[in-house]
Amino acid sequence: MGVVDGVENGCLPLDDRGLAYGHGVFETMEIASGRVPHWARHWRRLTRGCARLGIRQPDEARVRATVERQVAGHPRAVLKLLVTAGSGGAGYRVPAHHSPRCIVAIRPWPQRQIPDAGVAVRLCATRLPFDARLAGIKHLNRLHSVLARAEWGDTPEEGLLSDPDGNIVEGTMSNVFWVEGDTLLSPDLSRCGVAGIMRERILEWAERAGIATSIARCPPARLLAADGVFVCNSLIGVWPVARVDHQGLPDAALIRRVQSAVSRGAC
Amino acid sequence: MGVVDGVENGCLPLDDRGLAYGHGVFETMEIASGRVPHWARHWRRLTRGCARLGIRQPDEARVRATVERQVAGHPRAVLKLLVTAGSGGAGYRVPAHHSPRCIVAIRPWPQRQIPDAGVAVRLCATRLPFDARLAGIKHLNRLHSVLARAEWGDTPEEGLLSDPDGNIVEGTMSNVFWVEGDTLLSPDLSRCGVAGIMRERILEWAERAGIATSIARCPPARLLAADGVFVCNSLIGVWPVARVDHQGLPDAALIRRVQSAVSRGAC
Repeated sequence: MGVVDGVENGCLPLDDRGLAYGHGVFETMEIASGRVPHWARHWRRLTRGCARLGIRQPDEARVRATVERQVAGHPRAVLKLLVTAGSGGAGYRVPAHHSPRCIVAIRPWPQRQIPDAGVAVRLCATRLPFDARLAGIKHLNRLHSVLARAEWGDTPEEGLLSDPDGNIVEGTMSNVFWVEGDTLLSPDLSRCGVAGIMRERILEWAERAGIATSIARCPPARLLAADGVFVCNSLIGVWPVARVDHQGLPDAALIRRVQSAVSRGAC
Repeated sequence: MGVVDGVENGCLPLDDRGLAYGHGVFETMEIASGRVPHWARHWRRLTRGCARLGIRQPDEARVRATVERQVAGHPRAVLKLLVTAGSGGAGYRVPAHHSPRCIVAIRPWPQRQIPDAGVAVRLCATRLPFDARLAGIKHLNRLHSVLARAEWGDTPEEGLLSDPDGNIVEGTMSNVFWVEGDTLLSPDLSRCGVAGIMRERILEWAERAGIATSIARCPPARLLAADGVFVCNSLIGVWPVARVDHQGLPDAALIRRVQSAVSRGAC
């Protein structure tokens, strides 16, 4: 169920380059009270991804009109928006005058019960390769997240992926932050990983709130020695991390401040 | 146009994991006289890819029956077979009892006029990251090939991709071989690249024919100093390389032997 180029229950043509090569980008957005609160940020990342992948910029007014028709009346739900490079082309080569294809689908808001004390995460064996040309954007080539997520079953709640040097980069579906004293830190994503919208919101809020932030390398020992760790994304918000593999982690007042800022819409 | 799980003109459901994450594999096969001459090899690689990506093995008899219905009567055409991890699952996690989805499409045999003296290729700036878990198989995460192919327009005929150490790995759509004396060499694909069916056929034929082969590292200087270079795949067969960027390359009798073996069906 969904909408393809404005047509409800639309069908994906089998020669779509999103299917063939993963040649596209996507956004997973919160819908609240029939609106998409962070549309501008999502659209900015999506179009940055299109530019990086040689996909013509989709028309924002048209896509937004489709999205608004779909989200109207939904008090709380999840919107997935995909933009692919459209159909065809001779093999890997993108036709100069291709039309990007836009796919919109809505699903129920996930009901997740997570302990207030925080979640457990694991350090995944799967590594993200360095790949500066694809870093940051949310493209459809997501096999590393799939392989990492296949490392475990129902628990823990999330897994962390490292780069080839062993530094932690992100979660399978989330970004990661840690606290050192009064400073909020998050891994550098210039060589691999997805630059999440919630991560961006939190970093900007921290700056406004006068909280020191730093983008830094994160070997596992540094994470385990932190004063607190959390993972975040646009759907889960902020999840404090209570345990990494078998090691417990302290709670940090700063994480509770971030959680509160997110839940009251301050960022 | 195509067939999805045996249904003609089938539609791809929008929650397919092949579209969402590139979670699938594909094969591009030659059809000759209504048959798929190298089915067993393609099927072997495809199922190896499924195993690597945690996709349940599709039923060979059923897929083959669909394929045979489609190829019947085609004197010469191209068959594309995709197998994805099917629909759904909670995010990246694959449902334990998922059904793989099988997509079959046929397109006309490409009419390519290439000079008998060989083709021109370029050394691409795009690098393939090391990624042993995905190396060799033909998965749907193909953005590196797309980015590399976007580096040039109509000519040259192919581009070569290197690994992060600068060694040449493969072409955007082909595998590469080079000749040193009486030896046929091809790059190691254990850390990145697709292990092509035509490459496999040629290596096995060479062994039967008593021709020395070697899997080796290929810095550009080694390729440029070779006694001959060719690229190959299941559709183009063997293309001798006449020029790499601005440097001409010699013709090699051994390449003509390989070409002849492929065209007379000896391998």
